[in-house]
Amino acid sequence: MLSVEYRGVEGWCEFMIIMGVDPGTAITGYGLVKVENNRHIVLGYGAIRTSAQQSTAGRLETIYSELKNLITEFRPDCLAVEELFFNKNVASALAVGQARGVAILAGAHAGLPVAEYTPLQVKMAVTGYGRASKEQVAYMVKTLLGLREAPKPDDVTDALAICVCHGYNANNWGRAK
Amino acid sequence: MLSVEYRGVEGWCEFMIIMGVDPGTAITGYGLVKVENNRHIVLGYGAIRTSAQQSTAGRLETIYSELKNLITEFRPDCLAVEELFFNKNVASALAVGQARGVAILAGAHAGLPVAEYTPLQVKMAVTGYGRASKEQVAYMVKTLLGLREAPKPDDVTDALAICVCHGYNANNWGRAK
Repeated sequence: MLSVEYRGVEGWCEFMIIMGVDPGTAITGYGLVKVENNRHIVLGYGAIRTSAQQSTAGRLETIYSELKNLITEFRPDCLAVEELFFNKNVASALAVGQARGVAILAGAHAGLPVAEYTPLQVKMAVTGYGRASKEQVAYMVKTLLGLREAPKPDDVTDALAICVCHGYNANNWGRAK
Repeated sequence: MLSVEYRGVEGWCEFMIIMGVDPGTAITGYGLVKVENNRHIVLGYGAIRTSAQQSTAGRLETIYSELKNLITEFRPDCLAVEELFFNKNVASALAVGQARGVAILAGAHAGLPVAEYTPLQVKMAVTGYGRASKEQVAYMVKTLLGLREAPKPDDVTDALAICVCHGYNANNWGRAK
């Protein structure tokens, strides 16, 4: 499933670069993973942090522009985000929604297809169990991607987990060289 | 409070144009109101509708680009949105959040200051009572703005109510001619 050949503009290539994003107003985790044949190669990961001192507009602008910069730098083929994060309360769901909205927009404005996965799909893809614990997900992300440790904060690990999930699930992906 | 003089680039002017937005994924209401001395002049209002057939990314892109078009056309001095809409459930709060995020971003990208008001502040400004009914708000929006009828859907009336609220609350507003 992972090794799909795609005839790009200049020939055959067998890889895609996935940008996974776990959006939040204070911390947006991101991961960039190249999937080549059966291998995952981590190109980069990190967290975009905004300060509570900033206005909402300023924070959203930061998230959007940092993601746009990452897209320019790493030229991913697609953007993958979690479909729904069931927050405990409505106020935090609204805040997550805002960040998620600008993240999706950053991808769409760069012409990337945007894929959405439920937390269940992400956990299933990474651990084989839809209700796996955070620790189990972190352990598997570390193992699958050959990292020494699971990155902190959790948002970064989650973003990498979304990359892995999309790598397994993408049907007709490819890259025009 | 409403008649503040402001020394613009080419001289004095005494008005500001407010763009009010009530964001939602399916329907985003907007209103454009010019406040001059003590008068409200409605420049335009309407609803940006997106189809459930579209992808999330497509819907958010439509909302963003339509708002950008309106900003280009009407050149408002500021954008005003409701601070929190307490939805019944988390899923709809997340969807509203996404739309709200891209609306705020559209304003920020156009260099507009973005003002946020709670539903209580909006109702207070329009009806004098923070827990006024929808009907009361609609009646007052119609009356204050000299409209024959309150616009439909409710999202449009709400967007105009936010304009009125910002007109009363803005401290140091003005317009560089």
